[in-house]
Amino acid sequence: MTAAADHPFVADLIDRHQETLTRALAASASRDYWSPYPEFPKAYGETALEDGKAAFESVLGLPFVIEGQPTDGEPVSGESSPYGIEMGVSYPHFEPDALIAAMETARPGWASATPAARAAVCLEILARINARSNEFAHAVMHTTGQAYGMAFQAGGPHAQDRGLEAVAYAYAEQTRLPQKASWTKPQGKRDPLSMVKEFTVVPRGLALLVGCNTFPTWNGYPGLFASLATGNPVLVKPHPRATLPLALTVQVAREVLAEAGFDPNTVCLAAEHEGSTIAQALAVRPEIKVIDYTGSTAFGDWLETNARQAQVYTEKAAVNTVLIDSTDNYRGMLNNLAFSLSLYSGQMCTTPQNLLIPRTGISTDEGGKSYDEVVTDLAAAIDGLLSDDNRAAAILGAVVNPGVLQRTVQASGGEYGELALTPRVVASKEFPAATLRTPALIKADSDKPDERATFMNECFGPVYFAVAVDSSEAGIELMSRTVREQGAMTASGYTVSEQVESALVDACLDTGVSLSLNLTGGVYANQTAAFSDLHGTGANPSANSAYCDAAFVSNRFRVVEVRRHS
Amino acid sequence: MTAAADHPFVADLIDRHQETLTRALAASASRDYWSPYPEFPKAYGETALEDGKAAFESVLGLPFVIEGQPTDGEPVSGESSPYGIEMGVSYPHFEPDALIAAMETARPGWASATPAARAAVCLEILARINARSNEFAHAVMHTTGQAYGMAFQAGGPHAQDRGLEAVAYAYAEQTRLPQKASWTKPQGKRDPLSMVKEFTVVPRGLALLVGCNTFPTWNGYPGLFASLATGNPVLVKPHPRATLPLALTVQVAREVLAEAGFDPNTVCLAAEHEGSTIAQALAVRPEIKVIDYTGSTAFGDWLETNARQAQVYTEKAAVNTVLIDSTDNYRGMLNNLAFSLSLYSGQMCTTPQNLLIPRTGISTDEGGKSYDEVVTDLAAAIDGLLSDDNRAAAILGAVVNPGVLQRTVQASGGEYGELALTPRVVASKEFPAATLRTPALIKADSDKPDERATFMNECFGPVYFAVAVDSSEAGIELMSRTVREQGAMTASGYTVSEQVESALVDACLDTGVSLSLNLTGGVYANQTAAFSDLHGTGANPSANSAYCDAAFVSNRFRVVEVRRHS
Repeated sequence: MTAAADHPFVADLIDRHQETLTRALAASASRDYWSPYPEFPKAYGETALEDGKAAFESVLGLPFVIEGQPTDGEPVSGESSPYGIEMGVSYPHFEPDALIAAMETARPGWASATPAARAAVCLEILARINARSNEFAHAVMHTTGQAYGMAFQAGGPHAQDRGLEAVAYAYAEQTRLPQKASWTKPQGKRDPLSMVKEFTVVPRGLALLVGCNTFPTWNGYPGLFASLATGNPVLVKPHPRATLPLALTVQVAREVLAEAGFDPNTVCLAAEHEGSTIAQALAVRPEIKVIDYTGSTAFGDWLETNARQAQVYTEKAAVNTVLIDSTDNYRGMLNNLAFSLSLYSGQMCTTPQNLLIPRTGISTDEGGKSYDEVVTDLAAAIDGLLSDDNRAAAILGAVVNPGVLQRTVQASGGEYGELALTPRVVASKEFPAATLRTPALIKADSDKPDERATFMNECFGPVYFAVAVDSSEAGIELMSRTVREQGAMTASGYTVSEQVESALVDACLDTGVSLSLNLTGGVYANQTAAFSDLHGTGANPSANSAYCDAAFVSNRFRVVEVRRHS
Repeated sequence: MTAAADHPFVADLIDRHQETLTRALAASASRDYWSPYPEFPKAYGETALEDGKAAFESVLGLPFVIEGQPTDGEPVSGESSPYGIEMGVSYPHFEPDALIAAMETARPGWASATPAARAAVCLEILARINARSNEFAHAVMHTTGQAYGMAFQAGGPHAQDRGLEAVAYAYAEQTRLPQKASWTKPQGKRDPLSMVKEFTVVPRGLALLVGCNTFPTWNGYPGLFASLATGNPVLVKPHPRATLPLALTVQVAREVLAEAGFDPNTVCLAAEHEGSTIAQALAVRPEIKVIDYTGSTAFGDWLETNARQAQVYTEKAAVNTVLIDSTDNYRGMLNNLAFSLSLYSGQMCTTPQNLLIPRTGISTDEGGKSYDEVVTDLAAAIDGLLSDDNRAAAILGAVVNPGVLQRTVQASGGEYGELALTPRVVASKEFPAATLRTPALIKADSDKPDERATFMNECFGPVYFAVAVDSSEAGIELMSRTVREQGAMTASGYTVSEQVESALVDACLDTGVSLSLNLTGGVYANQTAAFSDLHGTGANPSANSAYCDAAFVSNRFRVVEVRRHS
């Protein structure tokens, strides 16, 4: 069983990645900025952009080969790019019994590797993915609709950061106990009792990753690498509309595993057609002991209720709030919010949806502003940011799926309320068939029950509500209720009042949501940085765990002790 | 909210207990022997034994007062000592709504205390409990039936060790992130992005401890102190037959909390009559976010299925196995097993139940021994150990409840199979009305389905099965199946064969049970030492967590981040 762990390549990998692991552990402890993965496409070489594009295009229209994974029957296809290009990639179909049997065969070899060996293999997988970041960027762009720049960063280095962070946490938690310890208990005048104790990390079993449509790698890598680094083989079940980025990931993982002497079926791909229910069937298999999921609340709740044999980590719907009480940088606030609401057309679990503004207005460095003025100025800021179609396309990306598009249509038709900003169609030069829309900003009143019923639910996509509230205090109360009832991945606030700030902080601590205060520069409420920011808290209904903390990794394995007399 | 945390007494406590906390953390990391709590009754002062007895006797026959806790109606009584003395203690009855409301009022104050302040308060509670160990020993003895020596050690210092261990782990996990960190991200030629980030531990809510009959403090303290140290007020619901040890614990905790400026309702007692179902009602209350439970599999499974709003930690039934393959110290093995099976009449979740012996016999330093010889010699060793009634009473303790007594009666009547050793009544000089029985050793054959059906189920109490197996390999397979299907808290083995040892270790790693090998001296399979041995693994059906690791504490709180520009 330990043959692979003794493989010379594994020793080489441990050596090669030691410094990265050490620095990741240090960054996670200090929470200062750090990343080993450059976040600009050109950092990857003179021809990296062209090479990445060519690599992406080389897989289009062809069967995607995963050598050695059990497969049968008709291949799976159906991905369609929100940019309108024909993908035409087809993935091997699999029979769950055969796939799980193959992974069970792979399990003991991976389980018997040391935490150091597993971390090194994971870091090599990440390094190879990183080197191909431009290729991954295209795959992410054409499955999620993210603009290239964002697909590169969020789908590439930032996702890799989150994967590395999970590996570092997994390594740290698995090595808290010594592998071997001696225990000597004095017995007065008699000889002491003396024992030798060995502590061995025992993984849980097989892990299942259920990927999402919008951030297949960013939301997928924490669970994937947390499970893998703790010794659990991972079955990757991508969203049917965003298979390619995770298929590429599986391919790289299998290549590294095989080179290191492990069974490549330690990581397998379970591609499926849209509308198929393979995730449900897999999730309740007795062999599946860990599940990571990002997506709808309905299926997240289903998993939590039904997959009782597994540790289930879910990220579900969220209704994120910004409280706008006051600011000493009105332009900075408007610009920050405009970008935050425009970025990837609000198709982020972290994008603010409801902007709470006192109906009596707010104080700013430009004097008092009424509710209407704030709304109008924010609409103008968004309009200005997106006035040029090329720039707009680079920020907005494309609409990811028909559901989001439908909501922009409904918003435009006034179904959600009075429009302060009406979505417009943006033309993409490069991709004429792409579906691009600017955001809708809806005026709403917290006192009107029907309007409240609308904005108190997740309206995923570029539809935002400028909600008039009686006061900042009332706004904080509304935010708290929203977090408690609907869940929230982020909260943010603008205030120059110590009292309001303190009440806002207390409300966020009480309801369990992380808070960004007075963002007026190049940091946005919807972005978190690995090794420093926690993504989610696990303390409200939007997610039952955070990226990344000890709680996210420490239940993915157990420790078994063997003791004997010295 | 932070008034209590600023209390001068809290600062004093932090100072006073800093070294103990530091040493507990060091011991947990090194796994060497350590304890701050002396394990001999006389270490507590010249008059400690008499004082403890007098203190215990002073509460008998009286209402047990918990000042300041909401109470109503008829008091709860009904504890009866397995030693036959009249307890007659009555506990305040409570109305769940009022009690939970009072605890919700206490919650914010305790939640806002720092991890260091909470750890210090917990260590002061433990220190005061420790000082009263002789009193607690009587309370444990007369509710569980443990002999005084064991009640003192397991119910006193060893339970306190496990509580301290949980506090140390809780403190470590809560302080992995800095309270405040700065983050500076270079932006090429532009000014760097610069943020200040604060990380605050947010407890889950209220915690419920559901205590057990046999080890109210030893099995209760890990969960109680893990929840308390992570900021969750704890509602203590003792077993109706073992209320006093936890009622005393609650009393001490409330006294320390009040002195430190916290609301004493941070820890409350929910005593109940036998047969009442208050635990079910409390367990599904939305305010209850953490539950710790030790007891039957039926109620443990019920909690896991129904208390979905809470993190549920359970320890349930177990069928523990010893494999007897060979030994180079036959007498040492027999004596070790005899003590292990006699201690507290097998009323421990960790006591071996099934002794697997090859039907072809075993090799020993005294030559080959047939299955029958091993069984006869073991029966004789137990008989010899317990031949003197006084010594027997000091080892066996009393039978904890009618269910266990009934099983010894059934065993004596041959209902479980052929007797190799028949239980006998032991007379207690000090407590003539006590119920004391020596163990039953039953001969069983792994090839006979009806016998297998009997020994494959937990038979809690002093009833053991000497199971003939085809070979050591077959024994290891049977042990594995038992662990997988029934769960096990411990496994042990005797072998001089490297091959058998290796197979046994592999089986234990694979099924997730900790293993004691070749115990022939003063360490027993059923005993684990805090700071060094893990109690349980959480990897098989007998328990979903272990005492104590990061996984046991890290989900009892979350971390909320607040970030802003520097």
